[in-house]
Amino acid sequence: MDTTPAPALDASPAGTLSADERAAILDAVRDFAATELAPHALEWDAEKHFPRDVLRRAGELGLGGVYVNDDVGGAGLTRADAVAIFEELAYGDPTVTAYITIHNMVAWMIDAYGTSAQREQWLPGLIAMDDLGAYCLTEPGAGSDAAAITTSAIRHADTYVLTGVKQFISGAGAASVYVVMARTGEPGARGISAFLVPADSEGLSFGPNEKKMGWNAQPTRAVVLDEVRVPAENLLGGEGRGFSIAMTALNGGRLNIATCSIGAARWALDRAIAYVHERFTFGEALAEKQSVVFAVADMATELEAARLLVRDAATALDAKTPDTATRCAMAKRFATDVGFRVANEALQLHGGYGYLQDYGIEKVVRDLRVHQILEGTNEIMRLIVGRSVLAA
Amino acid sequence: MDTTPAPALDASPAGTLSADERAAILDAVRDFAATELAPHALEWDAEKHFPRDVLRRAGELGLGGVYVNDDVGGAGLTRADAVAIFEELAYGDPTVTAYITIHNMVAWMIDAYGTSAQREQWLPGLIAMDDLGAYCLTEPGAGSDAAAITTSAIRHADTYVLTGVKQFISGAGAASVYVVMARTGEPGARGISAFLVPADSEGLSFGPNEKKMGWNAQPTRAVVLDEVRVPAENLLGGEGRGFSIAMTALNGGRLNIATCSIGAARWALDRAIAYVHERFTFGEALAEKQSVVFAVADMATELEAARLLVRDAATALDAKTPDTATRCAMAKRFATDVGFRVANEALQLHGGYGYLQDYGIEKVVRDLRVHQILEGTNEIMRLIVGRSVLAA
Amino acid sequence: MDTTPAPALDASPAGTLSADERAAILDAVRDFAATELAPHALEWDAEKHFPRDVLRRAGELGLGGVYVNDDVGGAGLTRADAVAIFEELAYGDPTVTAYITIHNMVAWMIDAYGTSAQREQWLPGLIAMDDLGAYCLTEPGAGSDAAAITTSAIRHADTYVLTGVKQFISGAGAASVYVVMARTGEPGARGISAFLVPADSEGLSFGPNEKKMGWNAQPTRAVVLDEVRVPAENLLGGEGRGFSIAMTALNGGRLNIATCSIGAARWALDRAIAYVHERFTFGEALAEKQSVVFAVADMATELEAARLLVRDAATALDAKTPDTATRCAMAKRFATDVGFRVANEALQLHGGYGYLQDYGIEKVVRDLRVHQILEGTNEIMRLIVGRSVLAA
Amino acid sequence: MDTTPAPALDASPAGTLSADERAAILDAVRDFAATELAPHALEWDAEKHFPRDVLRRAGELGLGGVYVNDDVGGAGLTRADAVAIFEELAYGDPTVTAYITIHNMVAWMIDAYGTSAQREQWLPGLIAMDDLGAYCLTEPGAGSDAAAITTSAIRHADTYVLTGVKQFISGAGAASVYVVMARTGEPGARGISAFLVPADSEGLSFGPNEKKMGWNAQPTRAVVLDEVRVPAENLLGGEGRGFSIAMTALNGGRLNIATCSIGAARWALDRAIAYVHERFTFGEALAEKQSVVFAVADMATELEAARLLVRDAATALDAKTPDTATRCAMAKRFATDVGFRVANEALQLHGGYGYLQDYGIEKVVRDLRVHQILEGTNEIMRLIVGRSVLAA
Repeated sequence: MDTTPAPALDASPAGTLSADERAAILDAVRDFAATELAPHALEWDAEKHFPRDVLRRAGELGLGGVYVNDDVGGAGLTRADAVAIFEELAYGDPTVTAYITIHNMVAWMIDAYGTSAQREQWLPGLIAMDDLGAYCLTEPGAGSDAAAITTSAIRHADTYVLTGVKQFISGAGAASVYVVMARTGEPGARGISAFLVPADSEGLSFGPNEKKMGWNAQPTRAVVLDEVRVPAENLLGGEGRGFSIAMTALNGGRLNIATCSIGAARWALDRAIAYVHERFTFGEALAEKQSVVFAVADMATELEAARLLVRDAATALDAKTPDTATRCAMAKRFATDVGFRVANEALQLHGGYGYLQDYGIEKVVRDLRVHQILEGTNEIMRLIVGRSVLAA
Repeated sequence: MDTTPAPALDASPAGTLSADERAAILDAVRDFAATELAPHALEWDAEKHFPRDVLRRAGELGLGGVYVNDDVGGAGLTRADAVAIFEELAYGDPTVTAYITIHNMVAWMIDAYGTSAQREQWLPGLIAMDDLGAYCLTEPGAGSDAAAITTSAIRHADTYVLTGVKQFISGAGAASVYVVMARTGEPGARGISAFLVPADSEGLSFGPNEKKMGWNAQPTRAVVLDEVRVPAENLLGGEGRGFSIAMTALNGGRLNIATCSIGAARWALDRAIAYVHERFTFGEALAEKQSVVFAVADMATELEAARLLVRDAATALDAKTPDTATRCAMAKRFATDVGFRVANEALQLHGGYGYLQDYGIEKVVRDLRVHQILEGTNEIMRLIVGRSVLAA
Repeated sequence: MDTTPAPALDASPAGTLSADERAAILDAVRDFAATELAPHALEWDAEKHFPRDVLRRAGELGLGGVYVNDDVGGAGLTRADAVAIFEELAYGDPTVTAYITIHNMVAWMIDAYGTSAQREQWLPGLIAMDDLGAYCLTEPGAGSDAAAITTSAIRHADTYVLTGVKQFISGAGAASVYVVMARTGEPGARGISAFLVPADSEGLSFGPNEKKMGWNAQPTRAVVLDEVRVPAENLLGGEGRGFSIAMTALNGGRLNIATCSIGAARWALDRAIAYVHERFTFGEALAEKQSVVFAVADMATELEAARLLVRDAATALDAKTPDTATRCAMAKRFATDVGFRVANEALQLHGGYGYLQDYGIEKVVRDLRVHQILEGTNEIMRLIVGRSVLAA
Repeated sequence: MDTTPAPALDASPAGTLSADERAAILDAVRDFAATELAPHALEWDAEKHFPRDVLRRAGELGLGGVYVNDDVGGAGLTRADAVAIFEELAYGDPTVTAYITIHNMVAWMIDAYGTSAQREQWLPGLIAMDDLGAYCLTEPGAGSDAAAITTSAIRHADTYVLTGVKQFISGAGAASVYVVMARTGEPGARGISAFLVPADSEGLSFGPNEKKMGWNAQPTRAVVLDEVRVPAENLLGGEGRGFSIAMTALNGGRLNIATCSIGAARWALDRAIAYVHERFTFGEALAEKQSVVFAVADMATELEAARLLVRDAATALDAKTPDTATRCAMAKRFATDVGFRVANEALQLHGGYGYLQDYGIEKVVRDLRVHQILEGTNEIMRLIVGRSVLAA
């Protein structure tokens, strides 16, 4: 069985695409991943290079606003289609793809919660990926406990003044617009609002690019807000709605990260399959060893289970079913754990060669490791799922 | 989140049922499971009682030929609907349900491969569950290696004479018709044919009811064929086609067992959820303990992943896609492993009470244990999947 | 490598036995297990028979007071020797052995905390196993939270009046003496005292023999104390010391249960090794399959790791090192999890035959399952270990 | 409980050290690790720097020939002492320590199998770590299947001419002496001999330093032998004995790698313990969360089990028991799997900070990953153990 998902079974009931259109889009994405991402992924990792030019070409392909409405030029696709697209993209490189998905999440937030003026101002540039977006929620002292953030936004007449530090921000320093969650009111979730902060705002600065285990092809920096003034019309979605907006966005964000894990782990599995056919030991190909056959079976089975959970949650997200948050958390936890395990097992199947950077497997292991942590750690996912199941 | 699968997401694209019809059927089955199976399951286990009367009532409900064509009275449903139905049934009792699914497999074999005469002779009685069916493949010396069977069928004019021993046969002694795989030709898979052997055939006898860890509500016996003569028209599907028929039937059989694991494990999870709300220790309900929340989260997530694999494979089986056997093997391996793990974890969540027969959890653990072994052990499933993935 | 522990490496530094003496004792125990326990274990399980006569012969061999001081006839061995002895005994049958270890724990409590009068009254009979002991801590509403027990002991002049219910008591109904933890004072651990309650006390009665998943060769009943009067001299170790006594006893009790898991799992592994050599499939013995070789390797490795943890903790218990409770909890958690996993994997290696009662494997799976729950669930073990490590 | 191994329980029965001497040595090593390794480990990793000077100071401390006989200046300690020492050293940095252990293995090979002349020529320099050693077994086409090596050594009068390529050689380019396995005779294990090849031999050259996932503080290069002539007296241990020598050396080599995993994972666990006390979320320290307590418990328990397996195997190696190879393989498989898992879990407990290079945890994860592969992959370990257990 080819590990590429069978298109016939992917039919999204809510989708507006014909099966042929969908197949054509996935082909184009696969081609983009194979020519624009995969050949450079190792070099970008080694040199910690953020491929700004390639992102612009991704924008030309329509990848800047996959599920942004088409009135402003978005592709207007469903989440079910989006996760299929991002899986193919991540097959070429999970790190650049993960950034593209974060960018899409930001664009979607402006699309879904923005005023006409906000949508017109920001979305065309974001969709083209001439402008990039950044999502600023996490703070040094409030990781998993998002409702505890302390960045403040104090209203003075027609402006808000934002002060605080955001941590682990993907794209910081390169993005044109920062969606910043800040406290406008009472402690807890209800006192939080979302703001659109342009890159050239006075008082906005960035920490050094963090040295990380992986995810090297995208910059991660602290975002420092030192009395940054934004006009009141930069408030996104109303005062006190910031936490709700941030969490709703994360439902999709979690599926995006989950599908990146699947795409990259599938690449690692395919490399392992090729390797075990080529490598002979004790007189036969590794592919003939029963332990290898069993390992490959479990890798493929778990990847397929992960993919189905992600597709199913994406369909729920499209349909806005009440259990969407739970399904997204299930899918994120399971798929990112499976993705890491599969990549790590692919490394083992390569023996010593898997440990060498040239083979690319160890890079995927390093890249996927952070997916178990970000957009809510997998421990937070377990709390979300467990409490939901126990409350039923 | 309720652990009952959300009907809205179950829509089988190939199905002929409306969503309302499907929901009505599942309600009826759930009701049957709750009133006819669940209240007696512990007693049947303790007394090793095969509830012949309840099976007849299951037949009245249409459960004797769920995916048998309707020209002979079958329900004519898809496999996707069948696994949903069997999951609900297994919520009441996995052992009786597992037998019902084997019976359905036998009825389907006659439906799919039988002549008009064979179909007319056997299907009405099987569908009504006035007659029961048995599937006779495994032999004492050939478990996983099904192509190595030695039971012989030698043609003499218009009859075949069958001699051999079949092992671990569900329903043996109670069934009216036995589908027996026997060797009519060369060694290996191609020399095997399938026969319909009526219960009253001379030379047909049965071993003692095996004493087992679980699955006590259905009899398991050896089937001994001592020069059993059957007319040539009892050949099912042509000489040499027996192995192919047996394996094709097992694709569905594996999904049936898999879905039984899911239904029963879901029951165990629901019992555990109820228990952890009721049980207080160190001043708070167990449901408040983080380790319990995490455990319940993983149980629910894995069950959902298993369900999606089974539903997806059932859709493939309906569509007869080329990777059907691989998908069925994936689903069987994953779902039966998950089912056992979830039931076993539910036992642990009950503490000492989980070990007592009265609570019913330990029975489910015992019942589900064999699902990892039969219809092809999970090791054989790994070989099927691994080889398929490696051959792509 | 033979799975029998190598005697040369078992040398307990603190032991008073020579290597030859130790080997001779282990040989005698191995012989007793092989002749007195193993041949009857399946029958006792099926018939829920408590082999009172065999226990008396165990007493004759010195197994009634393995680590009771020799001034009253105890064997006076170290804990390191005791766990080695109990492992060999459990190889024959874990359930009867587990009861013997509970009996030993009770005898040790009287030996360690009893007055001369108490020691002289009870120990000779217990050591001979003419009398049996029972440990009564757990209550229906206080499982893991032992300090919350509500059984009361109210002093009236020279007597205490005990009222309450104890749950899951091994040997209840057959024992001559019950060590009962009851509340004599304030809430919490410090208000608990231990009492020796003779079987013939007025007001003492027993619930029905619980129907369990396994452990059928020993009776498990509730112990009901309805204003049971015992003389004040039946207080064991002073008022308010009961919880401390009970917990200290459990350190050893946990190692005993852990070593029972190892012994029985080793038996299951040995049966599996024999089976995979005998069973041929696809033209070769199962023992030639790489997945079987790997499975056996992991089973043997984990058992050895478990054994070393148990032996190490027993040495700590002998030496009374400050981390004894932590080491005992580590060993109990790890060894009972490993024991169940190994037995369950041995079942899987047997295929369908593993599910049949005649092969004895499924019985060991059922028996070992409760070891993960009793003497403190493995979740409680994790709390003890985790908190200790975090407090360092 | 402190995670530092309790010295009182480490007593090696065969050791010649007093408990005080042993404690003093371990203190000195701990101090060396804390001052000479730990403060520089991150920098060496980032800069791929092999700290030649620090190795010389390790030599001054006696770490160049820990189990080399003292007649040539070796420390003459037991393997049981050596693994305790290397664990402490790896707590400071596993990569440099792992190289030191390989160097020790080479020195031991010359000590154990060398002539007086060979011992006098090489050991003083190796013990002082003025000279470094390299072990050259693996070839590009023969990883796990060591007996299939093709490097040839052809005798011409008083010299051997060696031609071939060795892969993944630690210390290559920096070492003074290379112990090279080459074929002098028939195919298979018996045709292999071991040679001492000086670094300045004509025809000896080295590949580029491999770019690896981790283990960056030691160089890994191919060793190319292009008609390298060595005098016949450089043969180590007799013609045809090379494979036996190589495998015997690996028994110790595997324990050394295993103990490096334990030391470094213990460091990661200690960092995680410190972190969860400092980090507050949802109003309490992470150390208060039950899932954290459980995780720490399992990490500590598995590390302790791994340590006991390693110490036990080291004792067997000292005593030259017949099951030494099996015990070493058990310990290597288990300890390197546990080491990676514990380090990886420590990363998860750090949340996003664990992914940053500054915290050092991700480095340990990368370093320990290769321990599951080298000195025989863990799959080869499973074959060794499984076959040994099955052959008993």
